[in-house]
Amino acid sequence: MDTNEKGLTLIDRFLSIRKHTEDICAPLKLEDYVVQPVVDVSPPKWHLAHTTWFFENFILSPNFKGYKEFHPDFNFLFNSYYESQGKRWMRTDRGNITRPGVEEVYAYRKHVNEAMKQFLANEIGSELMPLLELGLQHEQQHQELLVTDIKYILGHNPTFPTYQPSEKKTSAKAIPLELIKIEAGNYRIGYNGPGFHFDNEEGEHQVYLHDFEIANRLVTNGEYLEFVEAGGYENFNHWQMEGLEWAKSNKISSPLYWHKNDEGWNTFTLGGLKPLDENEPVTHISYYEAEAYASWRGMRLPTEQEWEIAANGYGDKDSGNFAENKSFHPLVGKGNQFFGDCWEWTQSAYLPYPFFKREKGYLGEYNGKFMINQMVLRGGSVATPKSHIRSTYRNFFHPHLQWQFTGIRLAKNSL
Amino acid sequence: MDTNEKGLTLIDRFLSIRKHTEDICAPLKLEDYVVQPVVDVSPPKWHLAHTTWFFENFILSPNFKGYKEFHPDFNFLFNSYYESQGKRWMRTDRGNITRPGVEEVYAYRKHVNEAMKQFLANEIGSELMPLLELGLQHEQQHQELLVTDIKYILGHNPTFPTYQPSEKKTSAKAIPLELIKIEAGNYRIGYNGPGFHFDNEEGEHQVYLHDFEIANRLVTNGEYLEFVEAGGYENFNHWQMEGLEWAKSNKISSPLYWHKNDEGWNTFTLGGLKPLDENEPVTHISYYEAEAYASWRGMRLPTEQEWEIAANGYGDKDSGNFAENKSFHPLVGKGNQFFGDCWEWTQSAYLPYPFFKREKGYLGEYNGKFMINQMVLRGGSVATPKSHIRSTYRNFFHPHLQWQFTGIRLAKNSL
Amino acid sequence: MDTNEKGLTLIDRFLSIRKHTEDICAPLKLEDYVVQPVVDVSPPKWHLAHTTWFFENFILSPNFKGYKEFHPDFNFLFNSYYESQGKRWMRTDRGNITRPGVEEVYAYRKHVNEAMKQFLANEIGSELMPLLELGLQHEQQHQELLVTDIKYILGHNPTFPTYQPSEKKTSAKAIPLELIKIEAGNYRIGYNGPGFHFDNEEGEHQVYLHDFEIANRLVTNGEYLEFVEAGGYENFNHWQMEGLEWAKSNKISSPLYWHKNDEGWNTFTLGGLKPLDENEPVTHISYYEAEAYASWRGMRLPTEQEWEIAANGYGDKDSGNFAENKSFHPLVGKGNQFFGDCWEWTQSAYLPYPFFKREKGYLGEYNGKFMINQMVLRGGSVATPKSHIRSTYRNFFHPHLQWQFTGIRLAKNSL
Amino acid sequence: MDTNEKGLTLIDRFLSIRKHTEDICAPLKLEDYVVQPVVDVSPPKWHLAHTTWFFENFILSPNFKGYKEFHPDFNFLFNSYYESQGKRWMRTDRGNITRPGVEEVYAYRKHVNEAMKQFLANEIGSELMPLLELGLQHEQQHQELLVTDIKYILGHNPTFPTYQPSEKKTSAKAIPLELIKIEAGNYRIGYNGPGFHFDNEEGEHQVYLHDFEIANRLVTNGEYLEFVEAGGYENFNHWQMEGLEWAKSNKISSPLYWHKNDEGWNTFTLGGLKPLDENEPVTHISYYEAEAYASWRGMRLPTEQEWEIAANGYGDKDSGNFAENKSFHPLVGKGNQFFGDCWEWTQSAYLPYPFFKREKGYLGEYNGKFMINQMVLRGGSVATPKSHIRSTYRNFFHPHLQWQFTGIRLAKNSL
Repeated sequence: MDTNEKGLTLIDRFLSIRKHTEDICAPLKLEDYVVQPVVDVSPPKWHLAHTTWFFENFILSPNFKGYKEFHPDFNFLFNSYYESQGKRWMRTDRGNITRPGVEEVYAYRKHVNEAMKQFLANEIGSELMPLLELGLQHEQQHQELLVTDIKYILGHNPTFPTYQPSEKKTSAKAIPLELIKIEAGNYRIGYNGPGFHFDNEEGEHQVYLHDFEIANRLVTNGEYLEFVEAGGYENFNHWQMEGLEWAKSNKISSPLYWHKNDEGWNTFTLGGLKPLDENEPVTHISYYEAEAYASWRGMRLPTEQEWEIAANGYGDKDSGNFAENKSFHPLVGKGNQFFGDCWEWTQSAYLPYPFFKREKGYLGEYNGKFMINQMVLRGGSVATPKSHIRSTYRNFFHPHLQWQFTGIRLAKNSL
Repeated sequence: MDTNEKGLTLIDRFLSIRKHTEDICAPLKLEDYVVQPVVDVSPPKWHLAHTTWFFENFILSPNFKGYKEFHPDFNFLFNSYYESQGKRWMRTDRGNITRPGVEEVYAYRKHVNEAMKQFLANEIGSELMPLLELGLQHEQQHQELLVTDIKYILGHNPTFPTYQPSEKKTSAKAIPLELIKIEAGNYRIGYNGPGFHFDNEEGEHQVYLHDFEIANRLVTNGEYLEFVEAGGYENFNHWQMEGLEWAKSNKISSPLYWHKNDEGWNTFTLGGLKPLDENEPVTHISYYEAEAYASWRGMRLPTEQEWEIAANGYGDKDSGNFAENKSFHPLVGKGNQFFGDCWEWTQSAYLPYPFFKREKGYLGEYNGKFMINQMVLRGGSVATPKSHIRSTYRNFFHPHLQWQFTGIRLAKNSL
Repeated sequence: MDTNEKGLTLIDRFLSIRKHTEDICAPLKLEDYVVQPVVDVSPPKWHLAHTTWFFENFILSPNFKGYKEFHPDFNFLFNSYYESQGKRWMRTDRGNITRPGVEEVYAYRKHVNEAMKQFLANEIGSELMPLLELGLQHEQQHQELLVTDIKYILGHNPTFPTYQPSEKKTSAKAIPLELIKIEAGNYRIGYNGPGFHFDNEEGEHQVYLHDFEIANRLVTNGEYLEFVEAGGYENFNHWQMEGLEWAKSNKISSPLYWHKNDEGWNTFTLGGLKPLDENEPVTHISYYEAEAYASWRGMRLPTEQEWEIAANGYGDKDSGNFAENKSFHPLVGKGNQFFGDCWEWTQSAYLPYPFFKREKGYLGEYNGKFMINQMVLRGGSVATPKSHIRSTYRNFFHPHLQWQFTGIRLAKNSL
Repeated sequence: MDTNEKGLTLIDRFLSIRKHTEDICAPLKLEDYVVQPVVDVSPPKWHLAHTTWFFENFILSPNFKGYKEFHPDFNFLFNSYYESQGKRWMRTDRGNITRPGVEEVYAYRKHVNEAMKQFLANEIGSELMPLLELGLQHEQQHQELLVTDIKYILGHNPTFPTYQPSEKKTSAKAIPLELIKIEAGNYRIGYNGPGFHFDNEEGEHQVYLHDFEIANRLVTNGEYLEFVEAGGYENFNHWQMEGLEWAKSNKISSPLYWHKNDEGWNTFTLGGLKPLDENEPVTHISYYEAEAYASWRGMRLPTEQEWEIAANGYGDKDSGNFAENKSFHPLVGKGNQFFGDCWEWTQSAYLPYPFFKREKGYLGEYNGKFMINQMVLRGGSVATPKSHIRSTYRNFFHPHLQWQFTGIRLAKNSL
C-alpha cells in the first residue's frame, strides 16, 4: 500500500539519519560530550538533545495525540534560539550543565525515536511532511556541527587526543591550478524544484554576471603557506581593517589547528597531529584570511552567484569528499569537484534573495533572522552528508570564524 | 590664463570648503570641542585637525618643497586609521587629549591653509589633482560627521544645550505614501563620468533587477511611532537576532534622541528638545530598526541598486534638504526627493563592485578596508553638503549605529 | 621497629585521606567531574588530579629515585598557581579539558598512591615530613572545595539534581542569641605548638583587645530573612559601596541557593531543594552581606583576633558539625560551638602576622601571595574535616564570594 | 564681638580655601578642565563644581532661608557618590559632559561663595560648624586630587605639556638610610583632641606593638631603580599574585610617569619631562609595587599603627614638602620628616577602628562605605595642604592605583 510504503521508507530514513548522529559520537569519551570551550562550540550532548527536541517540540507534542514529553525542563534546556518557543537556557552556559547526563540524553533520543516510529506508522498529514523533512535536514546540519565541534574540543586539549586512527600519508599531488572562464549573461539563481530546500535558497531569480574566471580547485596548504611565510598576516594592503584587528588581538598568524615545531608545520586532524601536507586544501580559515589571501594573489573570492553558476556547469558532486568518506579531513582533489572537502567562502554577504519571504513564528526563525553580518559559504565539506548538499545551498558564518572546514576558491574578472 | 584661472578657482574652492568646516564649529563652546562620549563620536577638535593633517601629510609634505611641518607629533596624533602612515594614537583615546588645544588646532589649520595657498598659486601637476580633490571631499565627509558628532555631544548632556535657535514649528503635512513602480531589466550601476567619485562607486557595471516598487518619500515619525507603540521592539518576528539582542542589551526601544515625558514624545534637535513632529521623517535609527520596521509593514528596504535606479529616474536633488539649509534636521518633504534629509538604509551589504580594484597604500585604505559587516546607505542627509552627493554615492555604517541622520524608504517586489 | 611503625601509620593516614577525597566524588555522575561553571569552581576531576600532582611533583619526582612520572603533560595541566613550577594551563580554562578523562585521573591517583606506598615504606628524611604533612592538609583543603564546587555544579543545573538523600526535617529550635562578654587585655594570638599549622598562622604574638561581646551562635535563616524582607539589600546605610554595586550588577537580593516560589523560600542543599528552615544558620553569603546584616542589627563582625580568643575560651570543637557528619549542610546548633557548620566572616583583612616570613619558592606561594583584597574566615564548616581545623586557622576569600559555606557571628563593643 | 569675629574669620578661611582651589586650576587651558582619561581621574571642572555642590547641597539649601539653587540639574550632575542625595550622573561619564562649561562652573562657585558669605555673616548654629568644617576639609581633599588629576591629564598627552616651569636641578643627596628602633608596648592610636578630624580616625584606642624598626626616610628613585633593573617586576617571590597579574596585564614594569629613552630614565613632572633624579623619593607606585620592593629588600611596609607611633615620636611636619611649596614633586628630604612628599603605603587594610560608628545618611557615606579592598596611606604628599594633615590621618586607595603621589617607607621587626 502506497501509504504504508511511504511510511516505512520515511521511518527508515528517519532512523537512519538519527543513527548516524549517534555514530558520529561513538568514538567519544563521556567527558567529551559535556564541554563548551568557546561559545560557538556546543557540547556534543547538547547537539544530541537539541535535534531530538526539534522532533518532540515541533512534531510530536503538537501533533501526536497522547504523546508525553520526556521531561518538562527539556524545552527550556534544549531550545537553541527560538523566541517563539518560550524561555531558554543561555547559549553561553550550555557547557555548565551536567544533568541530564549523556545516558539520559540517549534515553531521550530513544524515547522520541520510539514515539516517532509510532507516529509515522500511521499516515501523517501532508502538511506535516515539510516540517518532518526540515527536522531531518536540521539533524544533518547538526551532524556537521558535531564533527567540527568534536574536532575543536579534542584539538584544544593540550594532549591532542585522536578521534579515529590517522589516515596513512599519501603522495597525491594537487592538480595544477587553472581558471575556468565563464561568459557574461543573465543567469538563473536559487532553488527551483520539487526537492527539499531551505527558505533562504528559494525564489529562483535572475542575475546578470560579467565575464569571470574561477579556479578549478581549492587553494592548497602549500600555496597558503607562501602567504604565511611572506608576512601575509601583517600586510595591511590585503586585509579588511576589522580582520587585521581580529588577527592582532587574537594573536592569529596561521589557520586554526596549524602548529609549528622544530620539524616544521603540523596540523591537528581527527586522526591526531600530523605534518602539514602541502597538497591538501587549506582549511579552518576565516573569511578575513580567505579574502586577504585572494587579494595577495591578485585575485578575489567568487560571489555566491558566480560560484553557483560555475558549480552547476563544472561541479562533480560524485567525486566530492563528504562525511560518508569518514576522512573528516580535506583530501587532495582530482578535479573540478566544487562540492565537499571545504565550505568555500564567497564574497557575498548573507542577505535575503529577491523573493525571500520570512515566515512568522519558528519557521521564520530558522534562517531568516541571521541575515546580517555573515558571509555566504557554498559547496559543503568533509563533515557534510552528501545527500544534504546541492549547488543552491547557502551556508553562512561570521567572517572571523575558523572552526568549520572552510577553504578558498579563487576567482577574477576576465580581462 | 587658463592655469592661473584654474589655480585661483581651486584656491577659492579649497578655502571655501575649509572655511565651512570652521563655520560648523562656530556655535560651539570650547569644551564641546574636546570630548568623545562614545568611540564612534570624535571630538570636533580632532576633526578640525585630522582634515588638516590630510592635506599636510598627503599633499604638502611630499610635494611642496621647503614645507615645514607644523608639529612633529601631529602625524601620530591625527592619523585616523592609515596603517601606511606609521603609528597612530588609539581611536578610543581621542577624547583624552587636551593638548594641542583648540586655539593651536586653528593655528594648525591656518598654517596649512597658508601653505596650500602658496602651493596652489603655482601650477600643480595633474597627477596631484585627484588627491587634492580627495582631500576636499574628505573634508566634506568630516563636515557631516562634525554635525552628527556635535549633536551627539550636546544631546548627551543632561541639560540639552542648543546649537542654534530652534526652527519654528510648521504645520506641513507629509505627502501621501505612494509606491513608484519600476520595471525589471538590466540596468547600469556605478559611476561613469568625468567628475569626482570615490573608488568604491567606480566601475560601471550591469545588474538585473526584477520588477519592484519603491516609496515616494521617507517613513515619518508618526508612522514609526505606530511601530513603537505596537510593541515593535519586542516582536521577534521582524528582527534579526543580533538586532534584537542589541536592542535588549542597550535598552533601546525608540530612535536615538527620542524622549518621552508626561506630555508625550519629544526629540532632541540641534535647536533643542521639541515635541515630536509626526510629519517629519523618522531619523537616527539603526539598520536593525529600519529593517524590522519595513518587515512589520509587510515590506522591505530597497537594495542599493534599486535605490540608485529609482533615484536616477525620480530623484530631485534640487528639492533636497542639505547642509546648506542649515536646518540640520530632516524636514517634511514635498515629493520624490531621494536626496538629502536622511541617509537611507539599503538592504545591501557594503561590498566591492565587480570591477573594484583596491589600490596599494593609503588610497586603498580610504574605502577598501571597510568592506565587511557594514550596510550601504544612499542619498545624503541634512548634514551632507549638496555638492558632495550623487546617486552613485555609497555610504556605509555598521548596522547598530544610530548617531547619523539615517532614515527609511520602503520597497517591495511587484506582484 | 619505630621507623616501620611510623612508616605504616603514615601510609595508613596517607591512604585514608586520599580515599576520603574519592569518597566525596563517589555519588557523582561522570559528567559532573568535568565542568567549571564559574572561574572559582574547579571541575572535580581537576581537584582529584591536582592533589595528586602535589605529591608527585613535590615529593616523588624530586625524592623517590627511579620514580617515573605518570604523564609528561600533567605538570602543565594540574599545576594550580605555582610560578615556581613552570608554565601552567590557565585557570579559566580548566573546564574545557576533557582528556585525561575521569578514569585516567583515577589511574593517576592509583599510580601515585602506589609509588607513595613504596616510598613511605622506607624511612624518609625528617626534612620531608613537613612537606608530606602539607600535602595531606592540602588534600583536605581540596576535599572542602570539592564539596562546595559539587554543590555549585549541581545547584546550577536547572533540574536541581541531588548528591545524597535529603535529611529529614527536624523541629530543632535555635538557642536564644546571647552575647559572651570578654574583657580587655593583652592576648596571645597565632599558633604556638608542635602540631601541623600553616605558615600564615605562625609566629605567636601579642595583641591588645578592648572589651567586647560576641554571639553564642550563628545568625539563623529566620533572622537573616527579616533583613531581606525589610529591604536590607537596598538600604545603602549598611553597605560598603562596592558591595552595593556588586549586589546591583549581579542582581543579588538573597543568599546563594535561596529560591522563592509560590509557597515561600526554599534553599538548595546537597539533598535537593527544600523549604528554608528558619532555625538553621544562614549560609552562602558574601562578606558584603554579612557586614551589612551586622550593621543593620546595630552590631558588627568580630575581628579575627576577637574570634580566636572567644573560640579558645568558649568553643567546643567536639560538638561541631563537620565533614565527617556528612550532612554537608549547616544544622541547628546546640551551643557555643564556634567550629564547624559555617566559615565565619571576620572584619579582618587577610594580611601577614607580625612575624610572618614568606619563604622563597613554592612554599612561599602556598599562602603568602594571596594577602591582599581578601577577608579572614574562621572556624571551618560542614565541608571541613574536623581534624583539619583549629582555633588559629585562617581561611580567606574575596569579599564577594558566596559559594563557600559561610556564615555570620555577631559581635559588638562592650558599653 | 566674639560671634562676629569668629564669623569674619570663618568667612576669610572659607574664601581662602575656595580661592586656593581656583589657584590650582589657573595654569590650565580650558580644554584641560573637561576630560577624564581614566575613571579614577575626574575632570578639573568636575572637582570645581562638586566641591561647590557640597556647600550648596548640605549647607545652603537646607539652612539658608531663601537660598536659590544655581541650577536644578547640578545636584544630579555633581553629586559624587551619595546615595542619600538622590540619583546621580555616572562616575564613568564625567568626562562626557561639556555643559555647564568652565565659565558657568566658575559662576556657580561665585554664586555659592556669595551666598556663603551672606550666610556666614550671621551667627550660625554651632551644630552646623562641624559640617562647615567638613566642607572645607572636603575641598582640601579635592585640591589634592586636582593636582594629581591634572598631572595625569597632562602626563597622558603625547606632547607632555607643562603645568608650571620646571624646578632647577639640584645636587642634593638623600641622607643615608637608617632604621629607627621603637620598643614594644601598648600604644594609643587614633584622634583624641578638639580639632577637626574625620570619623575614620576617631575613637582613640590601644594597640600592642612588638619591637620594630622603621626607616628614617623614603625609598629613593635610585634604590627603586635597582629593583627595576634586577628584574623585580618578574620575580614572583616578592609579589602578591594579584599584583603580578596586574603588572602583566597592564604591561607595567616601572612607576607611573617613568619613561626610558636613549639617554636613560626620565620622569614626567608638572614641570615637564626631566631626567630621573636618583636622590628623590620614588613616587607614583602602587601598593603592589611598594610591598614587592620591600620584600625584595628583605623588609616590609610598616603597619598604620607603627607608622603613627613613629611619626608621633620622630616626625617633623614643619620640614615637610607640602602643597604650599608648590613644587608638586617630591624633593630630596633632609631628615625624619614622615609628613609631606609622598603618601606612604602601609601594610594595613582600610578597616573600621574598634570604636568606629558609621552614621546614617550622607555623613556615614563620607568614609564609612569604602572600608573594603583598600589599603591605608599615611603622612600626606606634595599635593596635600599642610594644614590638612596630621599623624592620625588615614588615607586609603585600592592597591593597584599609581596616580597619587605615593611612596615607600621600609620597616622590619627588631631581632
